[in-house]
Amino acid sequence: MLLRFVSTALCIVAALAALPALAQKAHVPGGLVHEAEFQRLWAANGDRWAEEDEEIQAKLDALEKRFGKKPNIIHILWDDMRYGAVGHRLLTDVSGYEAPNLQRMAEEGMSLTRMYTEPSCTPTRVAAATGRLAVRSGMIFPIFPIHRMGLPGSEVTIAEVVDDTYHTGFFEKAHFGDQEEGYVHNQGWDEAIFSLYNQFAGQGFNGDAENQGYSIAYSPDGYDKKYFFDDSFRPLDWMWTVEGFEGEAPAKEFSTPTTFEEYQQANARMWERTKQFVRKHAGSTKPFMLQWWPNLYEVADESAMRPWTTQHATASAESIKRMDAKIGELFALLEELGIAENTIVVAMADNGPMVPIWPETGQNGFFRGGKNDVTEGGIRVPAFVKWPAVIEPGTVVGDIVHVSDLFNTFARIAGRYDQIPTDRVIDGIDQTALLVKGDKHGRRDYVFTYKGPALGSLVKQQFKRHFALSTGALAGAEFFDLYKDPREENPLMAEFLWTWAQFDHIVGRHRQQIEEYPHTPVARGVPYTGVERRADP
Amino acid sequence: MLLRFVSTALCIVAALAALPALAQKAHVPGGLVHEAEFQRLWAANGDRWAEEDEEIQAKLDALEKRFGKKPNIIHILWDDMRYGAVGHRLLTDVSGYEAPNLQRMAEEGMSLTRMYTEPSCTPTRVAAATGRLAVRSGMIFPIFPIHRMGLPGSEVTIAEVVDDTYHTGFFEKAHFGDQEEGYVHNQGWDEAIFSLYNQFAGQGFNGDAENQGYSIAYSPDGYDKKYFFDDSFRPLDWMWTVEGFEGEAPAKEFSTPTTFEEYQQANARMWERTKQFVRKHAGSTKPFMLQWWPNLYEVADESAMRPWTTQHATASAESIKRMDAKIGELFALLEELGIAENTIVVAMADNGPMVPIWPETGQNGFFRGGKNDVTEGGIRVPAFVKWPAVIEPGTVVGDIVHVSDLFNTFARIAGRYDQIPTDRVIDGIDQTALLVKGDKHGRRDYVFTYKGPALGSLVKQQFKRHFALSTGALAGAEFFDLYKDPREENPLMAEFLWTWAQFDHIVGRHRQQIEEYPHTPVARGVPYTGVERRADP
Repeated sequence: MLLRFVSTALCIVAALAALPALAQKAHVPGGLVHEAEFQRLWAANGDRWAEEDEEIQAKLDALEKRFGKKPNIIHILWDDMRYGAVGHRLLTDVSGYEAPNLQRMAEEGMSLTRMYTEPSCTPTRVAAATGRLAVRSGMIFPIFPIHRMGLPGSEVTIAEVVDDTYHTGFFEKAHFGDQEEGYVHNQGWDEAIFSLYNQFAGQGFNGDAENQGYSIAYSPDGYDKKYFFDDSFRPLDWMWTVEGFEGEAPAKEFSTPTTFEEYQQANARMWERTKQFVRKHAGSTKPFMLQWWPNLYEVADESAMRPWTTQHATASAESIKRMDAKIGELFALLEELGIAENTIVVAMADNGPMVPIWPETGQNGFFRGGKNDVTEGGIRVPAFVKWPAVIEPGTVVGDIVHVSDLFNTFARIAGRYDQIPTDRVIDGIDQTALLVKGDKHGRRDYVFTYKGPALGSLVKQQFKRHFALSTGALAGAEFFDLYKDPREENPLMAEFLWTWAQFDHIVGRHRQQIEEYPHTPVARGVPYTGVERRADP
Repeated sequence: MLLRFVSTALCIVAALAALPALAQKAHVPGGLVHEAEFQRLWAANGDRWAEEDEEIQAKLDALEKRFGKKPNIIHILWDDMRYGAVGHRLLTDVSGYEAPNLQRMAEEGMSLTRMYTEPSCTPTRVAAATGRLAVRSGMIFPIFPIHRMGLPGSEVTIAEVVDDTYHTGFFEKAHFGDQEEGYVHNQGWDEAIFSLYNQFAGQGFNGDAENQGYSIAYSPDGYDKKYFFDDSFRPLDWMWTVEGFEGEAPAKEFSTPTTFEEYQQANARMWERTKQFVRKHAGSTKPFMLQWWPNLYEVADESAMRPWTTQHATASAESIKRMDAKIGELFALLEELGIAENTIVVAMADNGPMVPIWPETGQNGFFRGGKNDVTEGGIRVPAFVKWPAVIEPGTVVGDIVHVSDLFNTFARIAGRYDQIPTDRVIDGIDQTALLVKGDKHGRRDYVFTYKGPALGSLVKQQFKRHFALSTGALAGAEFFDLYKDPREENPLMAEFLWTWAQFDHIVGRHRQQIEEYPHTPVARGVPYTGVERRADP
């Protein structure tokens, strides 16, 4: 009894003492400044994980020996889709899209049931590229024409991390903004065709001087002007997609479509270039890393809207079908080139669906909310990994993964973990163990989600706390059990008793660490510098 | 152009002319009086289906030759669970129960993504037993103590259909009411231990004369009696579970527990008898048919309520875990007895979860509503079929199936289709083709769902019409697209234009057929006749 009391007392003391600067037993790989909560996890599990890492490194070394080089890495990231909308038929039969190649990917690879992203495009893409929550670089919302802001040059991307040892290519939707320092080819990619904004900016068709009736969304003259006395409010033009090569200046405007046909042609040309990139480097002694982040949702294609012929006939469904066909082509190409076994393909959405425009992308399935919400509907996405040399077909993993973890995981697999900067907070966690050893080998049990500049929610294990929801439940704090209540509709009364303070401690350490490592201000300035406009758009 | 007009005109005429008494080309198997909508389906597809049936019969004959007898049939039917709560991890990881044996069943057998039931226990169980919507025998709601009503003796159950050629056994929850003519052993089962009401009636503990404080739900004396002047409102006692053998009278009270321990003991004894039944008939020249409809939800077990130790720690979760363990035992027994290959096991829930008592059984997942609702949340359930000799592992089928179809399908597989009565409407459809040939070989594209005595909703293909919902959408008619909107939250504006009248035609034919074949009145009278009470309860 006394022993039990002592041990309980020690536990309480241990919990109270668990401040950021914990004495760590095993050295954190790469000496990274991890987010405070992971430092706690490492303090408790680091010895075991360090040991496991040795075993995994031996496996990676054996693979490198077998294939003569490190694995190729392909990251496919698309827009606005809920968990379950593509993949296994037990989900998609209820409500989903016809995407046979993603279904095959689920069958032949790994499906993740708890892949978290940020709640909108720019933040998720920045987190994937930098391994850091987007709030840390000021990239807190989707950048639109003409925001005059972009990814700070001081951010270190995964392309910069693997540079020298990997051929790096980036195609289609970056959405890192319109600042030169943030252009993809200035952020480490050897070769890039990338959009500054999202795909809708490619469907505004503002550049067509001859046909002033063009745009799906915008025309400087297409409005009633009865009470009009500010011409400067409406931009006359903007730039959409740029082509650049690392170290070569200036970059060139690749496409700013003036018609839907030009938009489609631009996408077709980018797709050809994507495949060329794979072909070009397949036989190289250096592996390649490809970010193919395709433009989804061809909203300008009125003819694709709501035919009554197919199961999910919407413009979105048609776009997804086209993307899925390309994914099929890509896998066929890897097979044809004999590199499928040693290529990791990660495919996922960047955030939840745009529920307000149902049925276009708005089906929220298990979860409540969608894009821009910090409920699960906004941040929990379909995600699959195929890596035939390592991952068993039909693998399912229920571990929590955050999109920023890809940064660390790719760095690890590329053998470049030591290139991750140690002068800033890294939110990403190396999840190689999860890929190699499967279910229950993840290393994250929490996710911070920002909504714009403010912390919106915090997941810890099966619990979730919201900071800006309003269900009328508790005074300023709402707690949910995600296993029992994935729609976050039933605030917990029993569990808030002990979770409230625990969540406050985690957030307190998070904020304390931000004081020590302040956010980088977003890049701001004249847009489109360093890009030559196309003479013939 | 003229030809096209003529052909369009003919189509319209064909649609208008499609009344119930259509001239059928191929003869409907068994000469059944199918529900009017199926008669239309048969008129259009009967030739093809009759041909397919010959191929399937050849396959069934070959199986019979190989195994020396027709397949054994086991139907497992439990309470109140939403689609996705058990089975594949891509569903259960989001929100579900730990049920490894049902997960294995999904992996090794067939999962159905559109298995429909009636919206509550008694109706679903009656539909499964009789192949008819429960409204046709007046069994329109869950029968409770002491309703003095039950299944009419004139109903012909699946046990009566397969009698003589099959050993038939029934164990645990029947819920067919308290009328002698409806007792399970009077409805064709050779051997039966069956509850008259549901499992909660077994946890009322009203029979304990010595401890008047017993009940979880009911005690005749346990209330404030300040304004009390009607003693007869509160029953002093009731009967729960009865044991009977076909042709042997009287039956015997099997158990009416007076404590939670007795309730558990009764369930344990019934489980032993279930296994004995399988053992006893495994080596027989005659196959067996077993209805094991286990009692789920041990709500009296206060100690199981909400511990913080497991993923879904609720009394429900603990009950499901125990049931799943029994399913594992059952499969092990079939293996041990060498009869697994030639045994069909169908496992499913009887309706959606009781959402108002979240988190006990209330997780609605993809769908809106639960038990007693005619939204998908009430009537679309997890369902699996294992039949190793026929069904490939990991099969998924998206065809619509209704619980009443099991009646016809079992009759067909048992070679007793000619024993189905032809003097009444049969709602069930033979779905043997779906089991044998898999996805896209179902034969139903519609489901009528009653809420009590009134038609509540009608599913046709991906569309659904409600008759008693109130979303403020349209004047008396609400239409949904279940593929795009499985939660039935966004009433359709475009499609109601052409679906409204079509739905009316289907309902009109349905009602017209009811006039021709009126419902059978429910059995009513003194309860518990023909049962000897146990001396020592």
